[in-house]
Amino acid sequence: MVDDPVFLKNCLVLPCAGCEPSARTNILVDDREIRYIGDSEPPGARSGYVVECGRRHVVIPCFYNAHTHAAMTLLRGYYGDAELHEWLRHMWWVEKHMGPGEAYLGSKLAVIEMLFSATCGFMDMYFFPDEAARAARELGVRARLGPVIMGRVDPWRAVEAAAAYAKRISGDDLVGGVINVHSIYAAPLEAVREGHRVAQELGIPFHIHVSETRREVYEAKKRYGLFPVQLLDKLGALSKVSVLVHAGWIASWELGLVKEKGASLVHCPASNMKLATAGHFPLYEAMESGINVALGTDGAASNDSLNMFSEMKTAVLMQRHSYWDTRVRAKHVLRAATTGSAKAMMLPSGAGTIRIGAPGDLVVLDVSNPSSQPLRRDNLEQILVYSCEKCTPSHVLVGGRIVLSPENREKLLEEAARAADELSKFIEKIGPGETSEPPCSPREACS
Amino acid sequence: MVDDPVFLKNCLVLPCAGCEPSARTNILVDDREIRYIGDSEPPGARSGYVVECGRRHVVIPCFYNAHTHAAMTLLRGYYGDAELHEWLRHMWWVEKHMGPGEAYLGSKLAVIEMLFSATCGFMDMYFFPDEAARAARELGVRARLGPVIMGRVDPWRAVEAAAAYAKRISGDDLVGGVINVHSIYAAPLEAVREGHRVAQELGIPFHIHVSETRREVYEAKKRYGLFPVQLLDKLGALSKVSVLVHAGWIASWELGLVKEKGASLVHCPASNMKLATAGHFPLYEAMESGINVALGTDGAASNDSLNMFSEMKTAVLMQRHSYWDTRVRAKHVLRAATTGSAKAMMLPSGAGTIRIGAPGDLVVLDVSNPSSQPLRRDNLEQILVYSCEKCTPSHVLVGGRIVLSPENREKLLEEAARAADELSKFIEKIGPGETSEPPCSPREACS
Repeated sequence: MVDDPVFLKNCLVLPCAGCEPSARTNILVDDREIRYIGDSEPPGARSGYVVECGRRHVVIPCFYNAHTHAAMTLLRGYYGDAELHEWLRHMWWVEKHMGPGEAYLGSKLAVIEMLFSATCGFMDMYFFPDEAARAARELGVRARLGPVIMGRVDPWRAVEAAAAYAKRISGDDLVGGVINVHSIYAAPLEAVREGHRVAQELGIPFHIHVSETRREVYEAKKRYGLFPVQLLDKLGALSKVSVLVHAGWIASWELGLVKEKGASLVHCPASNMKLATAGHFPLYEAMESGINVALGTDGAASNDSLNMFSEMKTAVLMQRHSYWDTRVRAKHVLRAATTGSAKAMMLPSGAGTIRIGAPGDLVVLDVSNPSSQPLRRDNLEQILVYSCEKCTPSHVLVGGRIVLSPENREKLLEEAARAADELSKFIEKIGPGETSEPPCSPREACS
Repeated sequence: MVDDPVFLKNCLVLPCAGCEPSARTNILVDDREIRYIGDSEPPGARSGYVVECGRRHVVIPCFYNAHTHAAMTLLRGYYGDAELHEWLRHMWWVEKHMGPGEAYLGSKLAVIEMLFSATCGFMDMYFFPDEAARAARELGVRARLGPVIMGRVDPWRAVEAAAAYAKRISGDDLVGGVINVHSIYAAPLEAVREGHRVAQELGIPFHIHVSETRREVYEAKKRYGLFPVQLLDKLGALSKVSVLVHAGWIASWELGLVKEKGASLVHCPASNMKLATAGHFPLYEAMESGINVALGTDGAASNDSLNMFSEMKTAVLMQRHSYWDTRVRAKHVLRAATTGSAKAMMLPSGAGTIRIGAPGDLVVLDVSNPSSQPLRRDNLEQILVYSCEKCTPSHVLVGGRIVLSPENREKLLEEAARAADELSKFIEKIGPGETSEPPCSPREACS
């Protein structure tokens, strides 16, 4: 990682989703921020690391993956042909056996995979958050994470532990805490209420799965007489810090609540489709009404990749298939993957755009693969969304530091491969199995 | 391209969709066919080209892309946010201006893109088929193609020209003819009837778009009192050589006709979703009833990539989203992309599998990218379908010849880049526009 100024020279730049690309543009990143964008060479430009873009590179804002279970790369390709509830029982079997070692290796593999597909940060909900935080810090990306409140826990102790964790973890620019409550069906409602209160108090995201399946909606209605988002609202858990993940079964009138309270939604199309949760995430209505919409891949066990290029394409395809028209366009999903996710994750202002004063998070993308050609100013946004699944950055900057470059590329790939080998050994060691009891988390609050 | 024997040593091999993978396996390909599979070294194994697989490579059958308009890489990212009929008017504008030069460059870019995503052959429907044939021969892949019968043509002259073309083109192992009739709405019905008759006579595929949109079904019912597949049947155009592309609006009882007559269906999920044609391709019912189902990407203007890994994943995701369950599994789409497409294209027996006597079409796939890890025997099929969008072959063999390898890799990428640059210049030269009249094709039959 390099802390010197970075000067990107002569680049085709997409400054933001829906922005006009600019050709032959220079960018100076220094002291963690974007300091200059234009066609000259500002003072000091040549004193640090210089990238000459050439014809096969474009500069784009970073993606942020607003919903992951990073360490679930451990479970990639594992029991992949089942619906959510059956699938969960097999996931829980492995999760009951895993320890911090596997969580670290899984997170490391995930972060390297994300870097290689232009993602500079992620919001995580998984066990052993210290391990994901360690991987994020070592590799230099942004992470928002915390323990997952789920299972048979004492809600007060669980939230207290999560709050303490958030205070402890938020030490630097990169890693910050969130309050993760699994869902209204797999955590006590008191933890939902109290978790949200604490998130508001600390000014950090309150991150929860909601309205993912029809069954969840049905059970909520039967048990509480309320729809899931309506229940969150009654619990006082709907506000600007609330991040509602999935929402494929959200009712149209519940969108009004989300809008009124200023919460964010996270769309995870590939995972929803793979687990056959059906429903329809109302991306267009949400965005048009001004709700902040983010994009996430979910974990590698239900996707099974963490590639935000693929996720953007899948989002448009799924949305058009559901709406029977093309109202959802490239710019919508590009916005969700950049500024939408950044806002849900409460990242520094400007994250997800390339403008002066924004954090120095950007990607020099190698578009030399045949799939992303021919590429021009006029089709750049289309290519990024529909033809870039194989696009790989030559450089990734996070907070102004170069975290992926030709200099460390091979080393990162070797680390990912070594981690993957260890994860495979672990899977082979424990063998197949299932359990109907979710793991209790965080440990200190298990009853 | 190398004609010597090729010996693949110590590989993890997936012999076919749904087959058990075998580890530490050797394969000898000689004189265009697979000659040996096992754990020894047959005589002559070391006399030719030897590939040592190592831990980051797997050997899989080739994919065949059963529906393309290869040269439409020219139109990648061009006017991508519109529904089918509006989109077509913009495509036709460019197509009226293009000549054989652009068709050649577009096809070349497409074939290189396909090789880099493990595809050894394609069935094409586009103008200037000689140019696609030239690109296929130069690059050593299989192609099935012919002029497209569409617009205001004399049906007899058009079919005669197409038949003459098919006889002329079918000279070698790689390239063969098909009878391409655009659709029941963009070509004369006499051309459908006569085109199919000639295809049967010549024993080559009869390749037609059918039931792609609700409008097409509505118009057919209004004009002819019949559903599109039913109309094909009445015209006598439904048989073992018929390849029906899209079929998202096929009626459930029309499936019975397809089954009875032994026709193939081609699923193009990404293109259908991107153009918002909606409907539901009945993949599970078709496969369960014994109908041959193939997979295709359609052209790069409506997908916008020719990556069969992505297409397989999209197919499962779309199908699960539509069925609300996980009945469609990795093995289904892997079968469609390999043996299903091979059968629709009428390729040599065994194509799409790795077994003794099958044609020497196979791929040594580099799975070292972090997205496709961890990979084991037990999750190989899952990884190939759900986590391989970035997987790139180290070697591709078609008909026993090495057509992609580390030795020619850079050269191919440079050729693709040069072609892409020329295509962009052409697009910039003609500028935007639209026309409501489809191009008339083949030229010699235009009235």
